[in-house]
Amino acid sequence: VSDLARLSLNGATVPSWSVAEAVDGCARAGVPWIGLWRDKVAQQGLLESARLARDAGVRVSSLCRGGFFPAPTAAERQARIDDNARALDEAAALGTDVLVLVCGGLPEGSRDLVGARQMVEDGVAALVPHAADRGVRLGIEPLHPMFAADRSVISTLGQANDIALRVGSPHVGVVIDVYHVWWDPTVEAEIERAAAHTVGFHVDDWIVPLPDLLRGRGMMGDGCIDLRRLRRAVDAAGYSGPIEVEIFNDTIWGMPGDDVLALVKQRYLAEVLS
Amino acid sequence: VSDLARLSLNGATVPSWSVAEAVDGCARAGVPWIGLWRDKVAQQGLLESARLARDAGVRVSSLCRGGFFPAPTAAERQARIDDNARALDEAAALGTDVLVLVCGGLPEGSRDLVGARQMVEDGVAALVPHAADRGVRLGIEPLHPMFAADRSVISTLGQANDIALRVGSPHVGVVIDVYHVWWDPTVEAEIERAAAHTVGFHVDDWIVPLPDLLRGRGMMGDGCIDLRRLRRAVDAAGYSGPIEVEIFNDTIWGMPGDDVLALVKQRYLAEVLS
Repeated sequence: VSDLARLSLNGATVPSWSVAEAVDGCARAGVPWIGLWRDKVAQQGLLESARLARDAGVRVSSLCRGGFFPAPTAAERQARIDDNARALDEAAALGTDVLVLVCGGLPEGSRDLVGARQMVEDGVAALVPHAADRGVRLGIEPLHPMFAADRSVISTLGQANDIALRVGSPHVGVVIDVYHVWWDPTVEAEIERAAAHTVGFHVDDWIVPLPDLLRGRGMMGDGCIDLRRLRRAVDAAGYSGPIEVEIFNDTIWGMPGDDVLALVKQRYLAEVLS
Repeated sequence: VSDLARLSLNGATVPSWSVAEAVDGCARAGVPWIGLWRDKVAQQGLLESARLARDAGVRVSSLCRGGFFPAPTAAERQARIDDNARALDEAAALGTDVLVLVCGGLPEGSRDLVGARQMVEDGVAALVPHAADRGVRLGIEPLHPMFAADRSVISTLGQANDIALRVGSPHVGVVIDVYHVWWDPTVEAEIERAAAHTVGFHVDDWIVPLPDLLRGRGMMGDGCIDLRRLRRAVDAAGYSGPIEVEIFNDTIWGMPGDDVLALVKQRYLAEVLS
């Protein structure tokens, strides 16, 4: 069981489960961590979700997700910052100290990547005092460059590190998901550069051919990512926190949750930890 | 007409056309350049293709494509280098001095990106003497990171520049396609770094949502790429060669070739050149 000490099930891997079902599934499977999503938490109730996890002895590794900072008007950008502040409140209530940020794509009709990236940095910086109040860290997750237009203008770990270092707060860090960064020739150098501020590590795989941009991620071992190499690099940089399994995949979503969790454990041990 | 002086139709934009039809279409439309593909040239005949272009006064901007260097065995890698040598012969026969390289993905079953990238560099270096003999330049085209597994382990212009500079031959350069590099926060710095060895510039667009990884490229102006900014950066770096329009898109492939070419000219003038 101690080999599973860092394993976390991100709820998106079994979207058919409520928070109650996912917490129960993790407890039964001996998975000590869970990553929760705001929509599921809202359905279950915030305090009820916190209580269920606490009572089951399952710790919340992160809340997904804040972000989506770029917007055409200052008022819309402020509304998004306000929503992120509420997400920080929710994270604190759930007992996790990590809010994962999917930073957002280009504003509708815009082609200004530089401007959108500045909006991300401004949004993150604006949230720092509230994050410090709540004792929660903002985890900037670079998304694969194929999502630059519509989901995240932060495409590389280098960019995420740059923002974290410029903002320069202990409440701002990065979340590293292998699916998004595996291709990057600078990934190992950037993992090292992120040593002091890595707040999350996600595993999954890249299948060839990719079934779908968004819903085509693979189970660890089914693709071409050198998971052990990346896990060892993150560990060598000093990260010792939870390792979340986050797989958006129509085939896996069609499996019973308990079967998914059994497979996750097996592959985690064989493909990530070994 | 002089505004079209740099415009090139890459044959892949109208795959229904033979070399004869494409050359004729370009001549009628006043498009002075054409980018040819090896399979179409083989169907038409190499010398016949060269004669058709010459007689029509349409110049060949590049031959697509060489590359695909990584392979599991030394014998297979050598076979690919030999095939690239034949592609150099064909380029010279067609009167173009650019062979576009799509460098190739991971060898079957491999997860070793570093090793595959070395195979690319070794392959390029091995071809330099033959490229010099033929007076043809090898154009390393970085492909979008979403193709890292199966089409090109060279994902960024920075990597392509690194290889070009390390190999250090006037017969090795880079081809910049906006679809592959637009998202990169370092793209303008790398365009500048590529100043002395940019051998091709391709335009198209990134549509949101992306219809398909491979066959979902957009017509210039239909997506979110800041084409003018990138064209100006490439020009400012000193590139004054042809600008190829290369669009893999099922919708555009369903249009009559003459209509595609009319639209290409209009969008080139409005979205790229202006």
